[in-house]
Amino acid sequence: MHAASIEKLIESFEQLPGVGHKSAERIAFYILEQMSSERAAEMASSITEAKEKIKFCSQCQNLTDTDPCKICSSPKRDKSVICVVESPEDVNAIEATNEYSGVYHVLHGALSPMDGITPDDIKINELLLRLADGSVKEVIMATNPTVSGTATAVYISKLLAPFDVRVTRIAHGIPVGSDIEYADKVTLIKALEGRQAMN
Amino acid sequence: MHAASIEKLIESFEQLPGVGHKSAERIAFYILEQMSSERAAEMASSITEAKEKIKFCSQCQNLTDTDPCKICSSPKRDKSVICVVESPEDVNAIEATNEYSGVYHVLHGALSPMDGITPDDIKINELLLRLADGSVKEVIMATNPTVSGTATAVYISKLLAPFDVRVTRIAHGIPVGSDIEYADKVTLIKALEGRQAMN
Repeated sequence: MHAASIEKLIESFEQLPGVGHKSAERIAFYILEQMSSERAAEMASSITEAKEKIKFCSQCQNLTDTDPCKICSSPKRDKSVICVVESPEDVNAIEATNEYSGVYHVLHGALSPMDGITPDDIKINELLLRLADGSVKEVIMATNPTVSGTATAVYISKLLAPFDVRVTRIAHGIPVGSDIEYADKVTLIKALEGRQAMN
Repeated sequence: MHAASIEKLIESFEQLPGVGHKSAERIAFYILEQMSSERAAEMASSITEAKEKIKFCSQCQNLTDTDPCKICSSPKRDKSVICVVESPEDVNAIEATNEYSGVYHVLHGALSPMDGITPDDIKINELLLRLADGSVKEVIMATNPTVSGTATAVYISKLLAPFDVRVTRIAHGIPVGSDIEYADKVTLIKALEGRQAMN
């Protein structure tokens, strides 16, 4: 019943993650009724511009507008430690701590045979190539503590066994500030297993 | 921490209704990581194209790519009955019933002094102009049964008092298929007040 170009606009937004038909409709009408033509044009150009400029960093595979990315090209970062994460958002979360000075490797996904995501679908080969020259001393597996994240960490750690490199996994445990009473069993078991001396 | 064009993309989506910062980030990364360049370009052009082509119908003020819109220009529609609604989505909802053969008037909002929405901000003048030639026999107020929707219906019905036109309000009551036990008080009162003979 909508005009054809409204339908097309709704369909565009409907394909985005977390946007259902009703939300897409609301967004489309917001753009048509309330947004100025200038802002709508800006929005359209921000999509094409980002899509043109943003590429994968040839080293860490993170999204970037320079190659290598700012982190990989920074002389302050320790290139001998690589933190392996699933997504660019994870890089941001770790960068926000200001505590990590190594570099990253973004897999862009995690292994999930059920969803048809095999080792060839994520950037594992690119990680192996970075280990070729022997300068990397440690690979920190910071994939999510989910089934697929853990499977990915285990898979990669086995692949790295022949290399002379230390492979570590980020610690799982009770989140700081939360209550043991409300922790789930698996987290509690991990927290007990990972207990450390209090010196 | 994101590259500038990623930030711009996130900001674009953040301004949309129902899209917070996290969702905007997820959408932006979806566009950059998973969408093909062709589909991203299509999305961008669907925004600019819709914004260019879609205008307000000069008669009913609904969004349309032809003027007058399909409904206003249809010889099958009864121009003597105008159904007044708040938004284009409401027109769709009523059209989907296939039971209404009159025309519409889209106000694009409802009176809400608290939010600074006055009679000049919605398409009330345009409605009055449509009554000038005396061909309209009935105006059905189908604004939402909310405070602002009801206020708008009452306000317009007073404005229309001097005209020789019947002004009606859509019925409020218990939704079909639902349970009286769970109906809220106001709806129940409206349902009792609106009771009809069972003939």
